[in-house]
Amino acid sequence: MSVLSTQSASDSARTATTASGNTPGTAGVDLGPAAALSCRECGERYPLSPIFACASCFGPLEIAYDLPAGDPEALRRRIEAGPASVWRYAPLLPVPADVAAKPNLNPGWTPLVRADRLAAELGVTGGLFVKDDSGNPTHSFKDRVVACAVEAARAFGFTTLSCSSTGNLAGAVGAAAARAGLRSCVFIPHDLEQGKVVMASVYGGDVVGIEGTYDDVNRFCSELIGDPAGEGWGFVNVNLRPYYAEGSKTLAYEICEQLGWELPDQLVVPIASGSQLTKIDKGLKELIALGLVPEKPYRIFGAQAEGCSPVSQAFRAGHDVVRPVRPDTIAKSLAIGNPADGPYVLDIARRTGGAVEDVTDPEIVDAIHLLARTEGVFAETAGGVTVGVTRKLIASGALDPAKTTVVLNTGDGLKTLDAVAPTAGPSAIIRPNLDSFREAGLAS
Amino acid sequence: MSVLSTQSASDSARTATTASGNTPGTAGVDLGPAAALSCRECGERYPLSPIFACASCFGPLEIAYDLPAGDPEALRRRIEAGPASVWRYAPLLPVPADVAAKPNLNPGWTPLVRADRLAAELGVTGGLFVKDDSGNPTHSFKDRVVACAVEAARAFGFTTLSCSSTGNLAGAVGAAAARAGLRSCVFIPHDLEQGKVVMASVYGGDVVGIEGTYDDVNRFCSELIGDPAGEGWGFVNVNLRPYYAEGSKTLAYEICEQLGWELPDQLVVPIASGSQLTKIDKGLKELIALGLVPEKPYRIFGAQAEGCSPVSQAFRAGHDVVRPVRPDTIAKSLAIGNPADGPYVLDIARRTGGAVEDVTDPEIVDAIHLLARTEGVFAETAGGVTVGVTRKLIASGALDPAKTTVVLNTGDGLKTLDAVAPTAGPSAIIRPNLDSFREAGLAS
Repeated sequence: MSVLSTQSASDSARTATTASGNTPGTAGVDLGPAAALSCRECGERYPLSPIFACASCFGPLEIAYDLPAGDPEALRRRIEAGPASVWRYAPLLPVPADVAAKPNLNPGWTPLVRADRLAAELGVTGGLFVKDDSGNPTHSFKDRVVACAVEAARAFGFTTLSCSSTGNLAGAVGAAAARAGLRSCVFIPHDLEQGKVVMASVYGGDVVGIEGTYDDVNRFCSELIGDPAGEGWGFVNVNLRPYYAEGSKTLAYEICEQLGWELPDQLVVPIASGSQLTKIDKGLKELIALGLVPEKPYRIFGAQAEGCSPVSQAFRAGHDVVRPVRPDTIAKSLAIGNPADGPYVLDIARRTGGAVEDVTDPEIVDAIHLLARTEGVFAETAGGVTVGVTRKLIASGALDPAKTTVVLNTGDGLKTLDAVAPTAGPSAIIRPNLDSFREAGLAS
Repeated sequence: MSVLSTQSASDSARTATTASGNTPGTAGVDLGPAAALSCRECGERYPLSPIFACASCFGPLEIAYDLPAGDPEALRRRIEAGPASVWRYAPLLPVPADVAAKPNLNPGWTPLVRADRLAAELGVTGGLFVKDDSGNPTHSFKDRVVACAVEAARAFGFTTLSCSSTGNLAGAVGAAAARAGLRSCVFIPHDLEQGKVVMASVYGGDVVGIEGTYDDVNRFCSELIGDPAGEGWGFVNVNLRPYYAEGSKTLAYEICEQLGWELPDQLVVPIASGSQLTKIDKGLKELIALGLVPEKPYRIFGAQAEGCSPVSQAFRAGHDVVRPVRPDTIAKSLAIGNPADGPYVLDIARRTGGAVEDVTDPEIVDAIHLLARTEGVFAETAGGVTVGVTRKLIASGALDPAKTTVVLNTGDGLKTLDAVAPTAGPSAIIRPNLDSFREAGLAS
């Protein structure tokens, strides 16, 4: 189990490092408590380096840690005295201890909104909270993962930061590279919305449009990693993926700390590749293992758009594997038809007593409006997915309205204006006089 | 001097309250340390109520306080132990002590970015910082002022929150009203950009487009306040303006606290109505008077767009009054042709040894790109104005590059995409293969 592997990483990691510690560019790497890479499938260990797949079984690699032992109260105090950013959790992340002193975007520590008005509409009585990640520097949760990837890029001596992206990630990488003084070159489908292209481009890095789909972009990036044309490049979501993905654990840490160092009973998390959901689970288990929160059962629910719902389809069908689909939904930031971590998501939803559910595009739009008018939070489509799925799960009885529930909003409505533009407009157009205003029927 | 009036507010305020304490809806008003309204021109005092102009001389009213006396160290500790929002400064604002417990957007405590890469490009050696208010809940500094206005609206029993706006304020009011459970009805020019209309509308309040200019919208709102059609309505920037405007003081408080309880030597602040600049000055003086920062000289510089530069024109001409202009600039959030606080801005710039300067639209666009590529901060046009003016002030010698300088970015680039769209696009469009990529000349 990952808590155990987390705790016992230390010794075997040191062995692995000793055995093959001469990997180019990885000598003397200081990534704080990160001790080694470990295969999620077969457990094979590797020294910290820019690799992402197990050489034995091709399973995904993740970070194994030397986590701080000792008094949980002292660790809690250390965290609470830290900066108002993800770096308060530096002792639990693959980053050097002095990370906060380096130029970076300092994402995280976003609001956990107590959503009493939304709760009233949904019939939740046990406490409903929205973790609102639109407050991050480039207004999506991607700033968290990119911040960790930047530290890995620095540690491994990469001078160019790169990624494949449908929008949010391209902006996050461009901004983070600018702050860090790194070059960036990001790859996007050539026909993205202009707004996303402008935002990705404004930070001064190179933005390359690829004639093809997001899948074509991904395949091209994998090719580039093995070619001299991409030498010295850190692809945050490919060769730096094990480090990058750990950034999502901070969502779990923040939620629990903001609840007063308590686990929530239920979480509703969006699914794109599924990485975020698996890392939230990992983060919660670490907090329990470290004694930072009292142990109790928690349930994790995954949320997809019906137009890209391979994981919820597999969940309903009782399958362990996920059959790829061709995405067709307004929730473009979740539109990954072949989610790499889909099987792990199924496992976590089943193990914790959660579920995976999906909602239609009109339900997504409704949910964006519902969240905005009850709580003043303007979510991107992915936030409409989680709020819409929460409503659906309550109706079906899968989610218990009497328990503490946290719903994630991972991005900003300003980035997906088109989704709500047809249903959000002026109540009236009037002439600048009182008679005209009274005729509009809006007077006190 | 406003520090003195701040300190001596207590006694005269109580007298004023006793003398005319029966104003409808103002009995038992608890707005924390706010003791009275005081005319900035003649000093006449009024009990706390939803009025904004002096009945004697028509001068603007502002808040006079009973500020906490005693040990500055204790107050500093109390602030530092407070929430990561403007409410850490509740003891210095016109809000009840329990403000943080009420549903509100909790704005503020935004990053003060140490901008070493921008400093290197501008030749600043004394320390350059960007106060980045794009991190606020609706991504502009307006959330600060609206949060204070909401408390005043609650105190005075208003059930509808309103404003005249060109965009940022409409969104901030809509979101704040939604969170607080108040109705909202905001007024905007009918021909605003669709994005701003969508954002203002999504929170579920009424959005009324007025066939006319922003000046027509303003005039209509003033008419509505005196009419039964607007009864029970709190217009945040009209009848609640004295309370609303105080929210801008938090920019000064945060900057100094984030500098380690030190005053910066120089600040560059955008000018729309001029209110923000005057309140930043007021906030700095309060910190000195309370002993929270060591006293030293500071200089405040005002920044305008050339296409709407009535204050910088008056500054250059040596005038004490500001001659209205007809705005024509891409910096629409600063496009107030007849700025109410213009004369006070002139006074502050001259008294502190600062200046007021302006930049052209192309210089604004250049500066947005400069800030984005050096620091990863994507500013709205108003941020381009302050960065561009900073560059110009250094070139002219008005701003000393050897001194600590703080530049404000008050909004988010996502809201003014059109400004940079012509100059931000992909570096290349390629086919998904390595040959095509190499031809583009971007390879490692």
